[in-house]
Amino acid sequence: MSTKLADTEDSASPDGFVCRESTTLYEQPNPLVLESGQTLGPITVAYQTYGTLSPRKDNAIFVCHALTGDAHVAGRHNSEEKKPGWWNEFIGPGKAIDTNRYFVICANVLGGCQGTTGPSSLNPETGKPYGPDFPFITIRDIVNVHNALIDHLGIEQILAVIGGSLGGMQVLEWAVSHADRVRSAIVLASGPKLNAQGIAFNAIGRRAIYSDPLFQDGWYYDADEKPHFGLALARMVAHITYLSEESIELKFGRKLQDGDELGFNLRAETEFQIESYLHYQGKQFVGRFDANSYLALTRALDYFDLSEAYGSLAEAFSRTESRFLVVSYSSDWLYPTAQSKDIVRALIETKRHVTFRELESPYGHDAFLIDQELPKLERLVAPFLARMYMDQRQGRSS
Amino acid sequence: MSTKLADTEDSASPDGFVCRESTTLYEQPNPLVLESGQTLGPITVAYQTYGTLSPRKDNAIFVCHALTGDAHVAGRHNSEEKKPGWWNEFIGPGKAIDTNRYFVICANVLGGCQGTTGPSSLNPETGKPYGPDFPFITIRDIVNVHNALIDHLGIEQILAVIGGSLGGMQVLEWAVSHADRVRSAIVLASGPKLNAQGIAFNAIGRRAIYSDPLFQDGWYYDADEKPHFGLALARMVAHITYLSEESIELKFGRKLQDGDELGFNLRAETEFQIESYLHYQGKQFVGRFDANSYLALTRALDYFDLSEAYGSLAEAFSRTESRFLVVSYSSDWLYPTAQSKDIVRALIETKRHVTFRELESPYGHDAFLIDQELPKLERLVAPFLARMYMDQRQGRSS
Repeated sequence: MSTKLADTEDSASPDGFVCRESTTLYEQPNPLVLESGQTLGPITVAYQTYGTLSPRKDNAIFVCHALTGDAHVAGRHNSEEKKPGWWNEFIGPGKAIDTNRYFVICANVLGGCQGTTGPSSLNPETGKPYGPDFPFITIRDIVNVHNALIDHLGIEQILAVIGGSLGGMQVLEWAVSHADRVRSAIVLASGPKLNAQGIAFNAIGRRAIYSDPLFQDGWYYDADEKPHFGLALARMVAHITYLSEESIELKFGRKLQDGDELGFNLRAETEFQIESYLHYQGKQFVGRFDANSYLALTRALDYFDLSEAYGSLAEAFSRTESRFLVVSYSSDWLYPTAQSKDIVRALIETKRHVTFRELESPYGHDAFLIDQELPKLERLVAPFLARMYMDQRQGRSS
Repeated sequence: MSTKLADTEDSASPDGFVCRESTTLYEQPNPLVLESGQTLGPITVAYQTYGTLSPRKDNAIFVCHALTGDAHVAGRHNSEEKKPGWWNEFIGPGKAIDTNRYFVICANVLGGCQGTTGPSSLNPETGKPYGPDFPFITIRDIVNVHNALIDHLGIEQILAVIGGSLGGMQVLEWAVSHADRVRSAIVLASGPKLNAQGIAFNAIGRRAIYSDPLFQDGWYYDADEKPHFGLALARMVAHITYLSEESIELKFGRKLQDGDELGFNLRAETEFQIESYLHYQGKQFVGRFDANSYLALTRALDYFDLSEAYGSLAEAFSRTESRFLVVSYSSDWLYPTAQSKDIVRALIETKRHVTFRELESPYGHDAFLIDQELPKLERLVAPFLARMYMDQRQGRSS
């Protein structure tokens, strides 16, 4: 379960290699009862761990990934792997989340397509992928499955749950519905509910998928061609919302993709660099993501609303026992700072311990994933974790 | 050419009825030479006029419409018409642009689909719609055609050219490339170029159209079914950019379309009101707009860049002879105030007469089209026009 040390030859990979692990939970006759009332089981959960669980089992940090992320949060699986995990600069020995000190767990979400049971997994009743028969899932369902994984790993208390965007919503849900085991909650670039604009952009993405004739009502797994046009288009529009106007203006502006003369050709779809970049993002995405998962997870995002679920935000947070660190980014227009402030106000109202910072960044919503922005985040997260860990060892309550 | 008075019975229509008019220009052998170097002719221009041209011909105001607008800027064509023109609350007797005083002209843009020659018009060489054979057009081409219309109407000087968004870009192009006839220029919710984010959203819209199998490379005019899925999707995504986060949050928030219970049904595409609203917007749009026009006009938007075209913004404005009124809206994120300020700074640098105001509004980019926001705009535009008109009559130069 712990990270293997790198071969001594592999000097380029000082963090060592990481293993894909998985476990199957909710075997019949004990399926998961979903928020919708439907049941689902068995459920396979794909996860990865880093560092070593302390003898007291008091150093576990659970990382919640965002919409299209996965369990591969840091390190490499082998020396051939081109890219390390998605938060490699933030998690590892001596890094912001120091795996010499903490035991880090990251798991793929329910409904995803990177190892945890989702629409592309085999339905044991039919022997074929669930496809559109996959039940409707919510963020609470996602968190319940991860909570069962923590049970499975024999861990009682989690030192910290951390995540950004959809991951931040999972953190909030963890803190509210599994309050007794969450010592601290770190919510990045997120909000207590998806606002109308967010629902609108998700609706566009889903419409793009539904409109693709290759989607075939979701029964495309046996087909030679998948609904890649629709899925790519969904990714392209979502990707714009992850960037700030400032950052794409700085990076691309009106630069042309080829040469420096306008082509006056309406058939040229990628004349400007920003267009070419979006097309590339779309193409890359369809190689690693499943359209039905995209539908399911964006709907889970839409449905998230802590105040609706618990009567009010204060009502929700009155259940929590964690300390909170809430971080927003100045140029994030998908989850603007005002949404983080809504969280913070409700936490203060319920007399919870909360630290809040808006970080200045030109990078928009994705800032928490961008390497050059991580040092700022580290300066908040590392001391917060260290303090939590020290206070916990000294038996101080939150 | 002037507005007909209403029948006395028609008390609901005090503005009188307005006529659709059109004229054909650039007859062979004198076609329009486009910015691309291609030629196009003949070109039919659809337009409407309001009020009466003064004997001195010094009271003409030209209105430039936005991306999907048309010449029908105010009034009704007949008593059956449900909705009046798109700026009916702003233009008419006693209104902000007072047709008792001014002679107002609005014309559909080149490349459009509301009467002026565009991709859906018959190509005289083939007897079929131009379709994708329609030449590539730019905002300068659009303005050149309207400039020829003004010639045709026997008008030399235009008291004011006014428009928002794509209309505002036309106003800028008017002021720069037809400086000798534009006395004043009123630029609303616009910018001197389209930024990368704007290009990105346009690219998404075009991708949606290109991806629709019914698009058939643009040769869909004879088909029973048009690429309505793609065009509707393009409209949906664009529509989000016209609204502010605040305004859709206030209007829709997370309200459900039917009942007050979440359905937990992934097949329900319009569960939230904002989704239903966007789908409605998409559906309405495909009934009145042509996909090839949408492609052509969004590309014309992308191409607009005054500083690129003239070396610098100051270089461009050094050609102008107008007074300027520049107005931005606080919650407009498609053409943020910073873009209007770029215009204003360059005008000041070139010692032009410019008035600038950022209007506070929650309605985003579309604010200049929203009835309840028009009184604020009227308080800027009406005195600006009155002053222009008075100074012109008194022979004062700009």
